[in-house]
Formats: sequence, C-alpha cells, structure tokens
Amino acid sequence: MNKILIKNIGELLTGREGSLEVLHDKELLLSGGKIVSVGKPGELSETGCEIIDADNSLVTPGLVDPHTHLIFFGTREDEFEMRIKGADYMEIAAAGGGIRKSVRMLRDASEDDLVEHSLPFLDNMLKHGTTTVEVKSGYGLSLKDELKSLRALKRLNEMQKVDLVPTFLGAHEFPDEYRGAHSTDREKYIEIIINEMIPAVVEERLAEFCDVFTEEGVFTVAESEKILTAASDAGLGLKLHAEEFEPIGGAELAARVNATSADHLVAISDEGIRSMKEADVTPVLLPGTTFFLGSDRYAPARKMIEAGLKPAIATDFNPGSSMTESLQIILTIACLKLKLTPLEAFEGVTLNAAKALNRSDSIGSLEAGMKADIVIWNADNHKQIPYHYGVNNVRTVIKGGEVV
Amino acid sequence: MNKILIKNIGELLTGREGSLEVLHDKELLLSGGKIVSVGKPGELSETGCEIIDADNSLVTPGLVDPHTHLIFFGTREDEFEMRIKGADYMEIAAAGGGIRKSVRMLRDASEDDLVEHSLPFLDNMLKHGTTTVEVKSGYGLSLKDELKSLRALKRLNEMQKVDLVPTFLGAHEFPDEYRGAHSTDREKYIEIIINEMIPAVVEERLAEFCDVFTEEGVFTVAESEKILTAASDAGLGLKLHAEEFEPIGGAELAARVNATSADHLVAISDEGIRSMKEADVTPVLLPGTTFFLGSDRYAPARKMIEAGLKPAIATDFNPGSSMTESLQIILTIACLKLKLTPLEAFEGVTLNAAKALNRSDSIGSLEAGMKADIVIWNADNHKQIPYHYGVNNVRTVIKGGEVV
Repeated sequence: MNKILIKNIGELLTGREGSLEVLHDKELLLSGGKIVSVGKPGELSETGCEIIDADNSLVTPGLVDPHTHLIFFGTREDEFEMRIKGADYMEIAAAGGGIRKSVRMLRDASEDDLVEHSLPFLDNMLKHGTTTVEVKSGYGLSLKDELKSLRALKRLNEMQKVDLVPTFLGAHEFPDEYRGAHSTDREKYIEIIINEMIPAVVEERLAEFCDVFTEEGVFTVAESEKILTAASDAGLGLKLHAEEFEPIGGAELAARVNATSADHLVAISDEGIRSMKEADVTPVLLPGTTFFLGSDRYAPARKMIEAGLKPAIATDFNPGSSMTESLQIILTIACLKLKLTPLEAFEGVTLNAAKALNRSDSIGSLEAGMKADIVIWNADNHKQIPYHYGVNNVRTVIKGGEVV
Repeated sequence: MNKILIKNIGELLTGREGSLEVLHDKELLLSGGKIVSVGKPGELSETGCEIIDADNSLVTPGLVDPHTHLIFFGTREDEFEMRIKGADYMEIAAAGGGIRKSVRMLRDASEDDLVEHSLPFLDNMLKHGTTTVEVKSGYGLSLKDELKSLRALKRLNEMQKVDLVPTFLGAHEFPDEYRGAHSTDREKYIEIIINEMIPAVVEERLAEFCDVFTEEGVFTVAESEKILTAASDAGLGLKLHAEEFEPIGGAELAARVNATSADHLVAISDEGIRSMKEADVTPVLLPGTTFFLGSDRYAPARKMIEAGLKPAIATDFNPGSSMTESLQIILTIACLKLKLTPLEAFEGVTLNAAKALNRSDSIGSLEAGMKADIVIWNADNHKQIPYHYGVNNVRTVIKGGEVV
C-alpha cells in the first residue's frame, strides 16, 4: 500500500473536540491505509510518496451514512406515483404496497440475488463519496430471511470497498403470518425475534446493532423495550426508529436502554430531547425521507442543537420512503429544511455519523491514526456541496488509503 | 454519420397529439442525425446499422431545459448559507449579494472567461440527459456586457454538443448606475435596452428571444410591455419572468404580447391562467427555485393543467436561486411539490419544453423526422427517474444521432 501525500488542499474539514473545523494551508500524509499526519505545506516529507494535487479544492473525511435499508429486492416506484396522486399510507398498504411488499419480494429472492441487487447501489454510494454505510435487515421478518439478508450483507462487506455496519432489524414490522386476529400473534413474533433471531444473529456474528421500529401501529414502547433489552443482553448495540410520526416515548426509551442512536425523531417532544441529551444518545435525522414522502414536517434539528445534541444525517436509503444513495442531496435538504449550516450538515455525515455507529475512533475525521477514507471535491469550499444540488460533486474518493 | 438501430427498448416515451405516450415493443432507427422510424421489433432493417441494445430499459427524448441563466461568472454559496440562517432578500442585497453581485462578477470577466466557466456546466447537463438548453443573458446589464455574454453563448453553441437557445435578458434588473434617486434613471436604462441593446442583439443575430423580469420592485408591467413590444417589432420571440412573488399582471401581459412562454408563475391568478390559455402561452415552471429558496409556495401546476395548460419544467440554473444542471432532481421536485405525475413531469421537459422554445417540430419527441436526441436510462420505466432521486440515472445520451 503506497504512501500518498495530498497537496494544495483549498479547504480541509476535520474534527476537533467533537466539532468540524475548517482548516487551510494543510497537507495530508497517508500510509498503510491510515492518516499519518496533517501538516503545513513543506512540513511533511514527500519521499516515496505518490503526490495527489488537490488543486485548491475541498478535502473532507469520507462520508458516513448511518441509516440505510440497502438490503432489499425490487423497487416501489408505483407507490411514489400513488402518493403524488393523494393516496395515504393505508391506501398504499391496501393496494399491496408498503414494507410488506418489500418483504414479499425479498423472500422470493436468493442470497445471491440480494448480493447482485445491492452491488450497483454500493458502487453508486462510493462514487458519491460515502465510504461507510450502516445497513439494516428488516425485509425478511422470518428467521430464514433475516439471516439470508445479513449473510448477503456479510458477503457484500467482503467483496467491495464500502465498509458496511450491519444492523439486525427483525422488528421492522409484523410479518403477514403474525398479523392475525389473535392478540397472541404479536407476542409470538416478538418471541421469535428474542428467542430465535437474536441468538442466531449473534452466534453467526452477523450484526453489530439491533434496531426496532417503535411507532404507533408498529412496535409499542413496551414491546420495543423487551426486544432491545434482549439484544443488549446478547451483546448487540442498540438503535431505534423513534417518533417518526407520533411522540410515543421512543426517544425516552432510547435513553433508558442506553441506545447508541435514535433515528427519525420528526415528532420528538422536548422531554425526549432532554432524555437523549442526558443519556448521550445520538440523533440520526433523515430529512430526505420527509422530502420523499411529500411532507413538510421535518425533525426539529435546531432545537436539538440548542439542547446540546449533535445530529447525524443519513439517506435512509430504501425503496419505499427514500430512494437515494447520495448523501449530497441529503446535505442540501438538511440545510434547506432542517436549517443546518453547511458545516453542521457536514458534521452530520462525518463526526456525528461516526458516533452514531460507535466508530468515532476510526472514521469521520482526518486526524492522525484514523482510517484514510477521504473525499476530494470539485469545489473550493464545503458550502458549495449542499449549494450545488442534484449532481455529484465528488472528484476523487480515497478508501482505506487507496484511490478508488 | 452512422445508422443506428436501438433494440430491446423496455419502455419508449414519445409524443402524440401534444401528450407523451408510453409505448412498448418498439425499435428506433436513426440516420443522418434524425429519427428515421419507430417500428415493431423485426420491422426495421438492420442492414448497415450499428446496433444499440437498450437491455429492456427506458428510452426517452433528450431532455429540454427551457429556462436557465447559465452565462454567469462565480458562485454565490455564501447567500445560500445566509438564507438558511434567516436572512431575507433585502439583507442579502444589503450585504452585496443578489443578481447585482453576479453582475459585478460577470463585468470583471472576459468573453473567454465566460466560455471557459460555462463548459463544465454544459458537459454536466449533457451527462444528465439534457440535449437542448435555453440560456439567458442578464448579468451584464450594459450594452458591452450583454453582448459579451451572448457572444460567449454563440461560441459555446458552436464548440460543444448541447444545443443552446439564446435569450436576451437585458431587463433582468436595473444596473447600479441607473438606480439613483432620479426617477428618470429607470427610463434611461429602458431606453438603452430598446434603442441600443435590442438593435445590436438583432443585428448580430445573438438571440431568438427577449425576456423581461416583470415583478414588484423590478420591471413594472408597463415598462415590460414597452420593452417586449420593441423586441417583438425587432423580430425576437418573447418570454417573461412573471408572477414569481406577486400577481401583478405578468401572465396577462404575456398573453397580450403573444409571448411564447411565461415563467415562474408561483403567484399567478386565476385570470392570469385563463389569459395564458386563451393566448396559448406555455407556462414554464421552476420548482427547483422554490425548493432552493427554502419556500413552500409552489406554482399551482394542477390548476393550470385543469385549465388546459401544458406546463414545461426547467432547472432555472443560476448561481443565486437554483444551482443545478440536472433536470432529474427537478423532475423529482415537480412530482413531489407540483404534484405532477412522473409522465406529466417528463412531458414538462420534453414536449412542453420544446413548445416553450418554439421547437416542437424538431425536438422533445421521438417521431420520424425529429432530431435524434435520445436518452437511454438505467431504469425499467419512466416512474423510476423522479423516484430514484439525487443521482444521475442516465445510461447513454445520443445527441444528433451520435452516442456521446
């Protein structure tokens, strides 16, 4: 693995004490897949280095996407059109759409199908500057199909360049076979998650996190707590889909179970914000989803920041509610709709996203010792990235010290 | 120029009687830069043809962007951030921003600078499927600088592949030197437009259209009518920036002067809609601009369609209020915010956009005899394009019968 010296950096974004700083007059020395040092021009030795001329451009950490559902099979553009024509969630479900449609399609696919289906998306993410991606299962909803999803993910992690952080999301929805009239059906599925799925996932080391969709009409707070406690006892880190539509106490639950992140949070209460701050739970905001669902109600990001929280930002890439691989369009929406400054938005997909994945020590910043995941941009400064929207502003991606 | 046969088309969008149709089981034969015929598989002779296998993908006309301000120099990302932090139009202007900032930057640039600055944007447009673009002057606001802009445009039209339709927009704003306290200043600038600029533009054949920014605080309806009448008398087609913020009668003026298009129309009145329908003025809607300005007030597209109008859609590409070359993200915003169906949105950037540029006989559709401007997409069907957002879904662009 070559030594690389990146010269003529116009603007360098890197972390210091939990915030991104904008630096000038810096060079970056990479070796062995890591950042060796950040120095002033002339300070670092060029001996034996491949020189990359950044041509006065912006250089940032590789982007980290901390919330996706990349393991799916088949698209759902018909629902996109139905929603435009005014159909609501219930009408789409009645027409056979929604998460359960993706469950049917994924169950019909093989592990090989899932691998093949996912590769172009990961390739596109990398081209758009994303070097680490969290990916959830959750379209299987049976032991067999959840394991199939996570095994496909494991293979994908080994066969291509983007680092994948796997999350088990058996509690994404109740599968059709446990939606019957009997009140015990829900309990049965939760028992399968706790007694069969979590042990199997842990046994095969297929996930780092367990996530639950805690929401009115999906998993109650009590059901979620039961699942998350079992997952924590089994050694998994915790995440929640919380308060996307109604503030039912998912944020407080995230604090109570010591979750690493709570995600969505569109409807979070002030009490929820306080609880998350006290328990140091990272909020992961998904403004692309609000945009894609045609809603105008965005997560109260500024309120969270005022309360001392540091929001991460993610694509929520999935075929139903956010069909994009690009964190760049999400940065634009985060600025325009969450009212984040461009620098805060970049923090959301670097430092704060790394924290949402328990990886602050290795990614999301460009300090010595961190992984050499780097983006050189077709831009003079970081403000131009959310500003120049709907296009790919990446010039060069460096993944683990190698030019992609 | 080779003959090309495009086979295995999954879905073909083409125009019939003013509407886009979705066709299946078709092949396209191109020769001499034009479409020779659209036939069923097996119907068209392959003799002497280069075969392009569309692999069951979507094939559409090359996209037409009927409203851009591509001739500028330098970006304005600082204003993007100021707006997020709550600054309004007046505060941005007071800080030296707005159109007048672009005027200062363009005046300091040479014709060569403008050509060089514009080439990457045109290249990016072509990569995103746009094969014809309307471009306005309007950051010069002096005889010399308006001519410099339009001459740069003429050179650009000859040196790269995207077809450019030039529009003279001397009436984009009043330049600083005619914003003094004297009420006669405005009159003087309008006289310069009418007596110096329009004759020079026509003499050098530098524009097809004349446009005016008719708006509260910019050009009044009376001033606009004077300019547009002079332009029409000089042989130019007419366009208006109308009713972007206030319904002051710009749509009715567009009808009265027989304009080809009226653009923006966020605040259009019912009477304005009726007038445009009666006079057959094409509305050009710019939903990316509303999005980029952080507003939630979009043009009443459905009302226009119900009234029988056929809206075109454009990027409004410019450094202040819509910094994107991609019509694809505009299709997404048009669906989500204007509530256009994906097919109506595609009509907006093909058939209806061609009409907004007086080019319905040569572009915007894939009938025999039309220019062979074609996009083959990484998608099975047209609904996937606005659905798969923030990324470039183009597989292959064919411009004038040649693969780009």
